[in-house]
Amino acid sequence: MKTDLDALMQKNDLDALVITGPAQHNPAMVYMTGGAHFTGDLIKKRGEEPIIFYNDMERDEAAKTGLRTKNLGDYNYLELLKQFNGDSILALATRYQMMFQDLGIYTGRVALYGRVEFGQAFAVFSLLQEKMPDITLIGEPGDNSTILQARATKDDTEVERIRQMGKVTTAVVGEVADFLTSHPVKNGMLVKQDGQPLTIGDVKPRIDLWLAERGAENPEGVIFAIGRDAGVPHSSGNPTDPLRLGQTIIFDIYPCEKGGGYFYDFTRTWCLGYASEEVMKLYEDVRSVYQTIMTELRLNTPYRNYQLLACELFEARGHPTIQTDTRTQSGYVHSLGHGIGLNVHERPWFKANAPAEEVIEAGTVFTIEPGLYYPEKGMGVRLEDSVYARQDGNMEILAEYPLDLILPVK
Amino acid sequence: MKTDLDALMQKNDLDALVITGPAQHNPAMVYMTGGAHFTGDLIKKRGEEPIIFYNDMERDEAAKTGLRTKNLGDYNYLELLKQFNGDSILALATRYQMMFQDLGIYTGRVALYGRVEFGQAFAVFSLLQEKMPDITLIGEPGDNSTILQARATKDDTEVERIRQMGKVTTAVVGEVADFLTSHPVKNGMLVKQDGQPLTIGDVKPRIDLWLAERGAENPEGVIFAIGRDAGVPHSSGNPTDPLRLGQTIIFDIYPCEKGGGYFYDFTRTWCLGYASEEVMKLYEDVRSVYQTIMTELRLNTPYRNYQLLACELFEARGHPTIQTDTRTQSGYVHSLGHGIGLNVHERPWFKANAPAEEVIEAGTVFTIEPGLYYPEKGMGVRLEDSVYARQDGNMEILAEYPLDLILPVK
Repeated sequence: MKTDLDALMQKNDLDALVITGPAQHNPAMVYMTGGAHFTGDLIKKRGEEPIIFYNDMERDEAAKTGLRTKNLGDYNYLELLKQFNGDSILALATRYQMMFQDLGIYTGRVALYGRVEFGQAFAVFSLLQEKMPDITLIGEPGDNSTILQARATKDDTEVERIRQMGKVTTAVVGEVADFLTSHPVKNGMLVKQDGQPLTIGDVKPRIDLWLAERGAENPEGVIFAIGRDAGVPHSSGNPTDPLRLGQTIIFDIYPCEKGGGYFYDFTRTWCLGYASEEVMKLYEDVRSVYQTIMTELRLNTPYRNYQLLACELFEARGHPTIQTDTRTQSGYVHSLGHGIGLNVHERPWFKANAPAEEVIEAGTVFTIEPGLYYPEKGMGVRLEDSVYARQDGNMEILAEYPLDLILPVK
Repeated sequence: MKTDLDALMQKNDLDALVITGPAQHNPAMVYMTGGAHFTGDLIKKRGEEPIIFYNDMERDEAAKTGLRTKNLGDYNYLELLKQFNGDSILALATRYQMMFQDLGIYTGRVALYGRVEFGQAFAVFSLLQEKMPDITLIGEPGDNSTILQARATKDDTEVERIRQMGKVTTAVVGEVADFLTSHPVKNGMLVKQDGQPLTIGDVKPRIDLWLAERGAENPEGVIFAIGRDAGVPHSSGNPTDPLRLGQTIIFDIYPCEKGGGYFYDFTRTWCLGYASEEVMKLYEDVRSVYQTIMTELRLNTPYRNYQLLACELFEARGHPTIQTDTRTQSGYVHSLGHGIGLNVHERPWFKANAPAEEVIEAGTVFTIEPGLYYPEKGMGVRLEDSVYARQDGNMEILAEYPLDLILPVK
């Protein structure tokens, strides 16, 4: 949680952290500021409140964050640019040096954060490192940075925002189901009023629309894939594919609050009208593993245990898994789940190679998403819900929705 | 244009370029790939076609780009991670080294691109630089990189996509105007059916919705600001502000194609019902400058001339400008325009300090957006259109919409 940040900075030997880049769609910045609309930098020294450096034109937006603010204009960038004959990299590095000095940062370890255009930032901070050799600029591993360690457990406000996104998500999933089942069937396909087949491409824009109606967006896209595409875990679906009865549809939706806020992550697999015995078997295998895992989730148990258990259960049912063949593209080919928050994928990870000391902590919010994929047979099944590990040890699915495979058609 | 890229790499002495980060909402990557949904890297050597390095699970999406592809799985990251005792920074740097070597990149200047989480990328490429001292990793200035130089002129396909976004944008602006004027007036404010004032916060979600309906999104937000907020150029507007008659509303909308594609940029200033003489004068001053500039735009003329002209014209009408006081927050306080494309702001820049040799080129698409701001008087006016400098020298406003100030109310 955010309140752990100073302790984590201490533990990881960080004296300060710098967040650059936009204030929206920039998880580290949104985490610290709430997502106000300004372009600038944020610096936090260990044990002190963060301070925002804003551009003149965005003073009102910066002030709305309620954080300490400082006007970047005070450093007169244009003057620096003139002084350095137009060398913008040198001017920016010098400005950071002045900002650091103003905050009394002359030595120590300073971690870098922010979603930025890489080239310029690489040049500027490489030069800053040269100019301030007593400081060590740190880039932490992307999936295990100090801020992500803080973010791995959520406070009540964060959980409530994720829960709210869960409600939005399942409401939209319900709209999609209603939309599909409102269409008549012809030649084994859903058809529109004009008699043409309803396609994946007809459905996807409506998902965006129904999300926007509820103040959400899906910056990472959406997976709505049928048949062979459903058998390839990250295929997002082919717009021209018609919606055929009896084929597996994987609908994986992971929207966030407008502006790049908290995410939800959710998957159902549907068959329109009916499912073959082979598909039914695949679905039952996934559902059974899903339910066993949900029942077995306990605080203080290593994440990796659950991935290993899922692999065992799938193997016992005759499916290949990445545990026995790391590069298989049939069977169970991914990990069991991941944390969600300001990233759709973040700590913790339900991976077989996660360290044993990483155990389910109270306050974490994560997905459980077993799946089976047989692209060569044109089928795939995945079921996914987002779970909150409560302080009392209960595991709460943050938005309930039926697991049903078959969507009845007219 | 993209076809200029090899020549620009030659001119800027680049032997290769590397783009990292997501395939969507990542302008450099979208420019090269079209925006397929995969996570990986792209490397282009000068004079050769680019090659995509994709993750196993996303092979179909990578293939859709039509570019050369290579499976990142071939480098067995997990094996590297084991070999380096879990040091993910070292494993990633080593993988890039192997990728570079596979493409025969052992020496030369390699530019870095991509919108990424900065910390890890900084660490990985700093280490790669150490491991491959015969290569020089280059971070170019963010507003003048080789790719942005290529992107500054658009090919016909790109212009058509921007023109299409212009149609979407003006259609949504029309919906907003209709929505406002459909409301009755009470106590000098627009009111809803329940008699409560219509607010900025009531309007903004509808903008998202109407954009989503048309396959667009606004990842950078929207400015819909009234009164004092309209007098602060980048204030995005206060959700609780009621829509009062006679106050200036600045509506600046800059959506892009879903997934982080081409942007449009457009501003109108409205007064509901009526405008005071003072506001009318402000509006006429802006419109007059807007029209003079539009008439004066010519190929091969320095961008800075137009910013200087705008300042002269505003000064002649009695307004302070940043030309006479770089830090003024009243009068004309920003630059006249900027290129648009896969970024809402990109080259070229209509700035007073732009070099004289930067002249309006055929193929550029840019905004013209003069404005006047008096926050202390609670008013601001800006007019903005996006213009395509055609090969024949004509300046085409890509989406026409009336400049009118006053929106009549019931």
